[in-house]
Amino acid sequence: MSGHIAWKDVSAKTVADYGIFSVTERLSIGPHGREGRFVVLDAPEWAVVVPVLERGGGRALVTVRQYRHGLGRACVEFPGGVVERGEDPATAAARELLEETGYRAGRLVALGSPSPNPAFMANRLHVFVALDLESAGQQSLDEHEFVDVDVQPEDRVLAAVGDPPWDHALMTAAAWYYRRWLEKGRPA
Amino acid sequence: MSGHIAWKDVSAKTVADYGIFSVTERLSIGPHGREGRFVVLDAPEWAVVVPVLERGGGRALVTVRQYRHGLGRACVEFPGGVVERGEDPATAAARELLEETGYRAGRLVALGSPSPNPAFMANRLHVFVALDLESAGQQSLDEHEFVDVDVQPEDRVLAAVGDPPWDHALMTAAAWYYRRWLEKGRPA
Repeated sequence: MSGHIAWKDVSAKTVADYGIFSVTERLSIGPHGREGRFVVLDAPEWAVVVPVLERGGGRALVTVRQYRHGLGRACVEFPGGVVERGEDPATAAARELLEETGYRAGRLVALGSPSPNPAFMANRLHVFVALDLESAGQQSLDEHEFVDVDVQPEDRVLAAVGDPPWDHALMTAAAWYYRRWLEKGRPA
Repeated sequence: MSGHIAWKDVSAKTVADYGIFSVTERLSIGPHGREGRFVVLDAPEWAVVVPVLERGGGRALVTVRQYRHGLGRACVEFPGGVVERGEDPATAAARELLEETGYRAGRLVALGSPSPNPAFMANRLHVFVALDLESAGQQSLDEHEFVDVDVQPEDRVLAAVGDPPWDHALMTAAAWYYRRWLEKGRPA
C-alpha cells in the first residue's frame, strides 16, 4: 500500500513554452528509492460556468458551440476559459460568461475544483454555477473566437451531455458537479 | 453563427516528442479567412474502466489510488491507462484492470468516448464498465507504478466523486457515463 506516498522531487526544468502551456521535465524519487523522469504541463488555471436561466417555472442553461482545434470539430459546451494572471477563478468565470454569451452573472456558486488531468497537468479547473443572469448585450470575442450561443431546457442539456457534440470530458465533469448541486438542494 | 464551421488546416509540424505525447503546431484558416496558429497534443488513446462487483445483492466498485505527478499528490480513481499501439480500447481497458487490480473482466460494455480536452488534445478517452469480475491474482505493475486497490460500495464511491481525493476530472466524467448507464437500466 504505497500508492499514497508522495514522490520526492529532485529537479525540475522547463523545456518548452507553447503559450497555452509550458512543459517541465521533473526528476522524482519514488517509494522504491529509484528516480523517474516525468513530464508535466504547467498551464494557467481554467474556469467553467454552468449558466442558469429561470424561466416559466423551469430552468434553462446557456450553452456555447465552438470549433475545437485538438478534436478538429465543434463541441457544445458550457462557457469558460483561462483564468488570467492576477484574476481569481470566480472573476474569470463571470468574465468568460459575459464575453462568450453577453450574460452577466448576478451570483456565482463554486461547485468544485478538480484537476483536468492529474497525471501530467499541474493546473485546476474551477467549476461554477451562475445565477440571476442578466442580458448585458453583445459578445466580446478574441480575434480567433467564434462562439454560437444557445439556451436549452436543463433536462435536455443534461440528457445530451456525454455524446457528440457534448463530448468534451471536462464539460461532462462540470455537469456532474452541477447535478450534484441540484441534488443537494442548490445550496448558495 | 459560425462556431460550427471547421477551420481549414494549412500546415502541421510536430515540434517535440515527450513520450507520453508529442506537440504539433498547426496553422489553420478560420471562418474569417484569417490564419491562426494552434498547439495540439497528440497522445495515444486512453481507456478507463468502472469495475463492478456484485455482492450480497448490492454493487461495489473496484478503485485504485496512485500518486499523480502533475497534481503532486495521490488520487483515487477507476483503473485505466494508455491504449497500446495496435490494441483496441476494450482490450486496453481489460488489460489495465488486470494489471492494476488483479481482476479479470468477464464482460465489458462501452459507455462512451469523450475527448479529454478537445481544445488541444487530439486523442480520446474510452470509458467502459467491467462486469462479471474474477479475481485472477496479483497486480502486474510497471517499474514506477504503485497502485493501492480498494473495493467500496457503489453509493459510497459515487457520493465521493468530485471531491479530493476523487478530484480527477476525467474520473468524474467516467462516473457520469456510469451513472447514466445505471439510469438506463444497465444495457449490455
